[in-house]
Amino acid sequence: MKKNILIIGAGGVAQVVAHKCAQHNDILGDLHIASRTLQKCESIIASVKEKKSMKVKGVFETHHLDAMDVKSTADLIRKTKSRIVINVGSAFLNMSVLSACIETGAAYIDTAIHEDPLKICETPPWYGNYEWPRREECESHKVTAILGAGFDPGVVNAYAALAHQDYFDKISDIDIIDINAGSHGRWFATNFDPEINFREFTGQVWSWQNSKWVSNKMFEIGHEWDLPVVGRRNTYMTGHDEIHSLSKNLDVPNIRFWMGFGERYITVFNVLKNLGLLSEQPIKTAEGLEVVPLKVVKAVLPDPSSLAPDYTGKTCIGDLVKGEKDGKHREVFIYNIADHREAYLETGSQAISYTAGVPAVAAAILVALGDWDVKTMANVEELPPEPFLKRLDEMGLPTRIREGKEDKKLVL
Amino acid sequence: MKKNILIIGAGGVAQVVAHKCAQHNDILGDLHIASRTLQKCESIIASVKEKKSMKVKGVFETHHLDAMDVKSTADLIRKTKSRIVINVGSAFLNMSVLSACIETGAAYIDTAIHEDPLKICETPPWYGNYEWPRREECESHKVTAILGAGFDPGVVNAYAALAHQDYFDKISDIDIIDINAGSHGRWFATNFDPEINFREFTGQVWSWQNSKWVSNKMFEIGHEWDLPVVGRRNTYMTGHDEIHSLSKNLDVPNIRFWMGFGERYITVFNVLKNLGLLSEQPIKTAEGLEVVPLKVVKAVLPDPSSLAPDYTGKTCIGDLVKGEKDGKHREVFIYNIADHREAYLETGSQAISYTAGVPAVAAAILVALGDWDVKTMANVEELPPEPFLKRLDEMGLPTRIREGKEDKKLVL
Repeated sequence: MKKNILIIGAGGVAQVVAHKCAQHNDILGDLHIASRTLQKCESIIASVKEKKSMKVKGVFETHHLDAMDVKSTADLIRKTKSRIVINVGSAFLNMSVLSACIETGAAYIDTAIHEDPLKICETPPWYGNYEWPRREECESHKVTAILGAGFDPGVVNAYAALAHQDYFDKISDIDIIDINAGSHGRWFATNFDPEINFREFTGQVWSWQNSKWVSNKMFEIGHEWDLPVVGRRNTYMTGHDEIHSLSKNLDVPNIRFWMGFGERYITVFNVLKNLGLLSEQPIKTAEGLEVVPLKVVKAVLPDPSSLAPDYTGKTCIGDLVKGEKDGKHREVFIYNIADHREAYLETGSQAISYTAGVPAVAAAILVALGDWDVKTMANVEELPPEPFLKRLDEMGLPTRIREGKEDKKLVL
Repeated sequence: MKKNILIIGAGGVAQVVAHKCAQHNDILGDLHIASRTLQKCESIIASVKEKKSMKVKGVFETHHLDAMDVKSTADLIRKTKSRIVINVGSAFLNMSVLSACIETGAAYIDTAIHEDPLKICETPPWYGNYEWPRREECESHKVTAILGAGFDPGVVNAYAALAHQDYFDKISDIDIIDINAGSHGRWFATNFDPEINFREFTGQVWSWQNSKWVSNKMFEIGHEWDLPVVGRRNTYMTGHDEIHSLSKNLDVPNIRFWMGFGERYITVFNVLKNLGLLSEQPIKTAEGLEVVPLKVVKAVLPDPSSLAPDYTGKTCIGDLVKGEKDGKHREVFIYNIADHREAYLETGSQAISYTAGVPAVAAAILVALGDWDVKTMANVEELPPEPFLKRLDEMGLPTRIREGKEDKKLVL
């Protein structure tokens, strides 16, 4: 059994990961959290203590770390005897953290694709640019690397795998729908790192249609869905990580991602984008100061973790899957509903962070117990979905399935 | 007669000033232009040469200058034997350029109020914060300092003085209306320095009503006007320099300023303001870089001078004056119409720069000839309006007067 966890990052998702690791430290062993800003790690541990999240008495220590530095990261993994690294830091860190895991033999788990600070929306499939070329390296070093083990990507990949395995003979369409029907009460804020948030939408929108990559512009294709709990919601087709692995790993001709946006978000996004303020390329001010506009936008926006105390409402994220079973057309919506307030009361973070963080810890538990300790690189849909969804149910993210007029909880 | 001109600044207004000084260099003598960016001065001189604007053979030289440095500025005034300085650089420079003029005895002309980079929208009357406290100093040194000699402030102050002198026994209301009905064809751009442009609207909106200062929020009070040439136009009550001197120098209980705004401008302004991107206070990025958001916004926006070649349409700026004459109610609109394309063909700048730059040169000519060489500090309404409006007519900015159904050119 693999033991001892190193959490990298100290934002809202890291806070959820810390609480959930603490709640399962009987399985996971010693806990460590590392970030560029030690004080953020200390606040997270204070929250873990305050909420008495540690299941059994044990270690939970903070560390200062620049995770772009592979040697420092490997040294910290060795020093803390961590066998599993949960990387929920910036998406720019993924490859260097993976290198440190390969060097030390620790398992690697992340929740989003690697990004290069100077590139936006690269050639599909995205995993082919940085992650997959390193699969053999993982295999030869017997290193388990679970890619994209948040909610989306992550749980929605497991939903697709479950649909493929149990509900369909043949799938024609997977539409992944992500709705945040919550309200943070601010004039404008992003729910996670603004830099990563905006970068999701500034490039082309890649979708997988008729087994080919199709490119659209952001906010070009809209669709209204009628969903459980959150009701009728407007969404736009958006590029997203999971399309890039599901299109390779499942034989499904149409895979699209839809995200709900309010009018305010669209207005702000369009103004910032059209003015060039979402650019990741440095510009020079009249005074000669070189600065990346997107980093200035990030600096003026509310810290996403500061939104949690006032956040109310729910999220609804799921896969609408269409295809055939026993010669008949079938359509199911596999989904989860999470509540911002409940997430906050349990972990001090809102539901967007909660839905991203809990699955990463569920994955860590499955790696620790051996179920998912595959000694190679894998996307979530390549792994057995049942133990993952069962853990998620126990950990606060139950799965529901709506089919026709029936809407029930998935019991595994 | 005062001779030899030093122009400070090298933006769109400076370019107009350069062309108009060149067209009158028989009166004005040697011409010099100085800015932080020598290359901009050189482009302006190249444009003056290309359009053959020099009336008689003469000097027009460029100089590198940091006009925040009083000693360098005084040295340059002495070296060039300039007796009149036209300051059309950043509004942050005014007080240091004025100091250099007082030190050297040169006349001083500017087109906008002095601003402190770290303060926005100070206590009214604005001229009381920096300019007026130095009036005695000007008087004791016999230095002519003409404040706000652009269009608004400037020509609109002369319109008010003319109305006061010739059209009314008693004025109750002056509404200054500024409409740019032109189109630059860009998604968004400001017509002059974005930093100064946005700063105009981020603070309180001061107006003079019932002989008292009244404070409102930006875009709080709108009004539609039916105007000559440009037709029905939506405006918002806005803070502006001229209210702050007219309220002191004329006995008029109500003085307001109205600026026309398109929907796009309002959307962009609201997004940037609400996000904190119009702040003049430095913030720190996650990487620790200290930067003023407004300066980043300025850096990503189109350079206002780059708009001129494609600019079409007209501006309409004027004073709607109400009051009594011979015991009867009277209402006149004194205004000018300028054309973006014509301004560009003559000076390489659009009409916003043209209307601001031409009056500064008209003022310089009047100082050179003695009409306005008052050897003290003065706002435009304190000076005789006729010679000014006559010069402006000859120089491309004719005055028109609409009263009831009659609309005619002012002939002086």
